[in-house]
Amino acid sequence: MDPLLPFLLALAIIIFAAKSFGYLSTRLGQPAVLGELLIGLILGPTVLNMLHWPPFAGGHLEETLRELAHLGVLFLMFIAGLEVDVEAMRRAGRPAVWAGVLGVLFPIVLGLGVSLLFGFTLLEGMLIGLMLAATSVSISAQTMIELGVLRSRVGVALLGAAVVDDILVILLVSVASALTGEGGNFWHILWVLVRMLLFLALAIWVGARVIPRLPVRVERLPVSEGVMALVVVTLLFFAWAAEALGGIAAITGAFLAGLAFARSPLHQYIRDRMHTLAYAWLVPIFFVNIGLEADARAIGVSGIGCALALIGAAMLSKVIGCGLGGLAGGFSPLDALRLGVGMMSRGEVGLIVAAIELESGLITQQIFADVVLVVLTTTLVTPILLRALYRKPPGERSADRQA
Amino acid sequence: MDPLLPFLLALAIIIFAAKSFGYLSTRLGQPAVLGELLIGLILGPTVLNMLHWPPFAGGHLEETLRELAHLGVLFLMFIAGLEVDVEAMRRAGRPAVWAGVLGVLFPIVLGLGVSLLFGFTLLEGMLIGLMLAATSVSISAQTMIELGVLRSRVGVALLGAAVVDDILVILLVSVASALTGEGGNFWHILWVLVRMLLFLALAIWVGARVIPRLPVRVERLPVSEGVMALVVVTLLFFAWAAEALGGIAAITGAFLAGLAFARSPLHQYIRDRMHTLAYAWLVPIFFVNIGLEADARAIGVSGIGCALALIGAAMLSKVIGCGLGGLAGGFSPLDALRLGVGMMSRGEVGLIVAAIELESGLITQQIFADVVLVVLTTTLVTPILLRALYRKPPGERSADRQA
Repeated sequence: MDPLLPFLLALAIIIFAAKSFGYLSTRLGQPAVLGELLIGLILGPTVLNMLHWPPFAGGHLEETLRELAHLGVLFLMFIAGLEVDVEAMRRAGRPAVWAGVLGVLFPIVLGLGVSLLFGFTLLEGMLIGLMLAATSVSISAQTMIELGVLRSRVGVALLGAAVVDDILVILLVSVASALTGEGGNFWHILWVLVRMLLFLALAIWVGARVIPRLPVRVERLPVSEGVMALVVVTLLFFAWAAEALGGIAAITGAFLAGLAFARSPLHQYIRDRMHTLAYAWLVPIFFVNIGLEADARAIGVSGIGCALALIGAAMLSKVIGCGLGGLAGGFSPLDALRLGVGMMSRGEVGLIVAAIELESGLITQQIFADVVLVVLTTTLVTPILLRALYRKPPGERSADRQA
Repeated sequence: MDPLLPFLLALAIIIFAAKSFGYLSTRLGQPAVLGELLIGLILGPTVLNMLHWPPFAGGHLEETLRELAHLGVLFLMFIAGLEVDVEAMRRAGRPAVWAGVLGVLFPIVLGLGVSLLFGFTLLEGMLIGLMLAATSVSISAQTMIELGVLRSRVGVALLGAAVVDDILVILLVSVASALTGEGGNFWHILWVLVRMLLFLALAIWVGARVIPRLPVRVERLPVSEGVMALVVVTLLFFAWAAEALGGIAAITGAFLAGLAFARSPLHQYIRDRMHTLAYAWLVPIFFVNIGLEADARAIGVSGIGCALALIGAAMLSKVIGCGLGGLAGGFSPLDALRLGVGMMSRGEVGLIVAAIELESGLITQQIFADVVLVVLTTTLVTPILLRALYRKPPGERSADRQA
């Protein structure tokens, strides 16, 4: 039989399942990503173990799916870079920066503490803390859009804090992956840091000076889908160069490529087309593949206590860290609490980091499954808590909207 | 090192090379596909043998590229189905049908004859004839657009004949692949034909009754890129079902899916987005991958005579077959000659068929390289000859335009 047939069928099933369960999730008032992760867990080794059914077993379907999922992640991080609104962040000002910084610090410290309590190594504990530090912009923003408060003071601060959070976490992940890659002698670490800084400087210079001019030029050429081919090539090259030349995460490269194209006059066109390239198939494959690679049974009965402790640490550390950030930025206690709860939901970035670390052998299947559970739980709880915190007299709500 | 890095770099190089050489080709007055095929030959084993360089060798990069190329083909055939204009074909009427039918018949007969002369088996000869039968709509249409005569009588007949040609060749390929797959006892062949007809009937019914209504419904749902995810899932499922259930080529399934969505009120939106999904990366990968898999050195010095004979047969058979079709449909000798020359250029479909047969082991590397050469030569010669045939007094040209 044609070896491509199982590949076609698996892709069709995965994309269909992702979009159907994403839709069901939306109908139940939850973000779509929750349904996509859940169906991945169901199709994966935790329940159905789909990739080991007769038509799919053998061959290198798992590797191909992982490669497509990886492309999905890169496209997702590119879009995140493309959507960074430097203006909105400036308006958010002090509470955003405070909430962003403290909201990264607290989960790392608390995650490390809980991990050490449950017998993980120092390295594992630091990586767990890092994975718990990454907020998901999309989930909290979507919830606040539904509540009609995204453009309020709290909403704008949330968007700004999420950007600070994103950049901090990506930088820390890059440093961590550079340092854990090889042994730790001083000159080696110095070389790693210099190489990283050189790459970042070069990539930001090219991204600011060269790339924003290219799309308009390419658009005039008689090349079919020339602009989007340019975008895809740049994205792939930046991702490759970040890891191969700069020693930092490939997702950082994709994020930087997105930041660069955000300054092009054609960025709306690019954003529109990238959405199709990403969300029509590659990103759903990424979310389902998380579940296909995670085995929730790896947690085991003995690991349930640890998983619950990590979920608690993940939720509390964001509420406290970002809440304190909000207070430090001049918010009322209620608004600070709303900001903290809004920042609580985790998503793509934590999963991306976890997937990379699992592949590199830095974390175990158990830790990976724990992180997936944290994402699922916080994704489920955040919209419910946020709605509760915004339940109040109509007059006050309309005042909040105009803030 | 991260095994994904070579994959990212290879993709970036391939897409960049395809688009650059496609552009150069256009600047030299040739269709883009010519440059994309040539750079593929240069990157492939014929010259540079890129996939065996240190960063790319080992691993399963070749398999992954083949899978992406295969997706590119399916997307291309879907778009071909989406763009079939049943109205234009009806207007073209008799000359289109005659030129379509005779333009398939003559290459098969002449291709078979030349193949037998050069010592190929009967099966190989029939497959070579089939591969020579497939005209490329895109190359001839693009040339006539540049000449300003696509909406003339000859231009419309060309479009209609290309559709007839496409459908006939795809059906014949499906029959051939069904028959060559297994032994040839009567009951088996009957079962193959019944299964094929059942599948075609079911697919056409679903494509006419069910699918055209779906996009509008899905568009209303809160699913990001829901319509395009539906399109991709349907395309993949039709392609899989055609081969796995119907026993016909996967590309036929993709073509039928395209025909189905052509009837949706959203077909313009779908066409637009599919262009991005296909031409921004998957289709360029397909064209370059042709060259990556073909080794022109396989032709050898002794095979040059055979290659030239096949190229001659490919060109003459279309000019004679389609020219006679034009005459039979009431065209003047000059218009009939123009139609025949316009139908001469080969492209995607021949390459697709050749790639499938090479993978199935039905044809040798030498035959595959011969087909690639036929596509390259006819792609190069057709625009030049067409321009020569339209060089005439301005008065006559304007009359032709309004026809």
